[in-house]
Amino acid sequence: MSMPAKIAPLGTVAIFGLGLIGGSLARALRRANLAHEILGFARRPALLDHARELNVIDRGSLDAAAIAAVADVIVLATPVETSIALLRQIAPHLKPQALVSDVGSTKRAFAAAAREIFGATAAPRVLPGHPMAGREHSGLDYATDDLFANAVWLLTPLGEERTAAQQHFMAVLEALGARLICCTPEEHDRTLAYTSHLPQMMSTALALTVRRAFAHDDRLLGAHAGGLRSMLRLAASDPSMWEQIASSNPDNIAAALAEAESALRTLREELTQPQFRADFEQARQLARQLRHEGN
Amino acid sequence: MSMPAKIAPLGTVAIFGLGLIGGSLARALRRANLAHEILGFARRPALLDHARELNVIDRGSLDAAAIAAVADVIVLATPVETSIALLRQIAPHLKPQALVSDVGSTKRAFAAAAREIFGATAAPRVLPGHPMAGREHSGLDYATDDLFANAVWLLTPLGEERTAAQQHFMAVLEALGARLICCTPEEHDRTLAYTSHLPQMMSTALALTVRRAFAHDDRLLGAHAGGLRSMLRLAASDPSMWEQIASSNPDNIAAALAEAESALRTLREELTQPQFRADFEQARQLARQLRHEGN
Repeated sequence: MSMPAKIAPLGTVAIFGLGLIGGSLARALRRANLAHEILGFARRPALLDHARELNVIDRGSLDAAAIAAVADVIVLATPVETSIALLRQIAPHLKPQALVSDVGSTKRAFAAAAREIFGATAAPRVLPGHPMAGREHSGLDYATDDLFANAVWLLTPLGEERTAAQQHFMAVLEALGARLICCTPEEHDRTLAYTSHLPQMMSTALALTVRRAFAHDDRLLGAHAGGLRSMLRLAASDPSMWEQIASSNPDNIAAALAEAESALRTLREELTQPQFRADFEQARQLARQLRHEGN
Repeated sequence: MSMPAKIAPLGTVAIFGLGLIGGSLARALRRANLAHEILGFARRPALLDHARELNVIDRGSLDAAAIAAVADVIVLATPVETSIALLRQIAPHLKPQALVSDVGSTKRAFAAAAREIFGATAAPRVLPGHPMAGREHSGLDYATDDLFANAVWLLTPLGEERTAAQQHFMAVLEALGARLICCTPEEHDRTLAYTSHLPQMMSTALALTVRRAFAHDDRLLGAHAGGLRSMLRLAASDPSMWEQIASSNPDNIAAALAEAESALRTLREELTQPQFRADFEQARQLARQLRHEGN
């Protein structure tokens, strides 16, 4: 076992959006001493005050351009559409060597915006990312300094080369415990349609189906066990976040949904057939494989 | 808070099938001192020996008729088809006042068999049941004396009246912590199609869909988080148990699957429409309601 190389702190890190992800990133950077200074941007003064009180950030500002102008690393930790708008707004004010990243759940739209805004310099200046870390609850009050420990953090670089600033940023993320995976924005959005968006839609569809089945008489709805509750956990997620994800990745999600509909139809048609068991075994194999990869 | 009334122990309880449910029932009865004697039936001598060593049962036998002949309460804790075969086998040997129950996951087939075997005396002699308690692992080694604490235990009586023996048995189940819900076998099988069988099929269908999506290149399959893993937990269930459930409730499961397919199709068609959010909110409402009912 070799000791990990000592990683230099990032300079001034500006985090735009102080929710669960932005707040947790700030806390993790602070605990690991991997940022000289942490600045926060939010639209509500009360949130900035709260973040300072919690010692999540050193300073806060309501002025996106001013914060961007002094930062070495900017992380846009807001929903995709907001991050695109912020990127456009701060672009003219960035230091020449500043690196911008984000944490959006889909990546094609953000990558396209970065290319449109920065042109030939998009690849060195913007490194889009997506930490796959979430909790049942959102918001700054649930932020923790270990949210990214052992979490997958996807990166979708816009070019082949990594600048020194990008390598430094990636080393810092790994030091926070993140497992980095690089792919293209297109690969990202297709992959996530299956590994994240489809599971959410299955949970939501299950909830809608159960709701309708007991709409006229819910006396027996109590006859459920942990299996149903675990399958409905995702259905309790924030609708506005999923509205944005759905509308920023509709082609891939639609394809995944169509395939899931087909899988359900196949199971339905073979309920009393020998093939049912074979399909069940195949599904079990994948479920066991992923369980062993989990924590 | 009043103290619960003291409940007399059941007499000789014979448990057929010493898996997770049968073993847990034996352990729970013993801990609560609610059976004078616990007998076990299994097909494998080694399992009976193991159950005695674990002090789960007092005596075991490979002779179903002999065990049935001395029992006051018989609980068939085997899969549905096995329980029906055992019921047929032990019926001629039962004491006149003996009560038979079972724990099968579907109830119409077992209820019909009981009516066919016992005719007019089916209702007083057989009280079909279904404890909604399960663990990820099956088998005697995972049996615990608190498996039924706060678990729903469905009963599908075959007539209107409860005999004294049935009332006694029900009081004992409640003393073990079970929450009893009575309904008809038909209501049971329709309800469970939505609250148990459909969640299982959704998990299995999700696993099949994800498996196919990464069949040619699984490099990015690692890009998943807790959401996918929680949705695939059920897909790791025992295929032979689900083969029996599917073939004993195919009409209800097929109806539930068709409705889930339709819910997925609706979500697919409205991914970028305002109605998406409204449906998402409705699903969320049910998910939150059931979460609060859970433990």
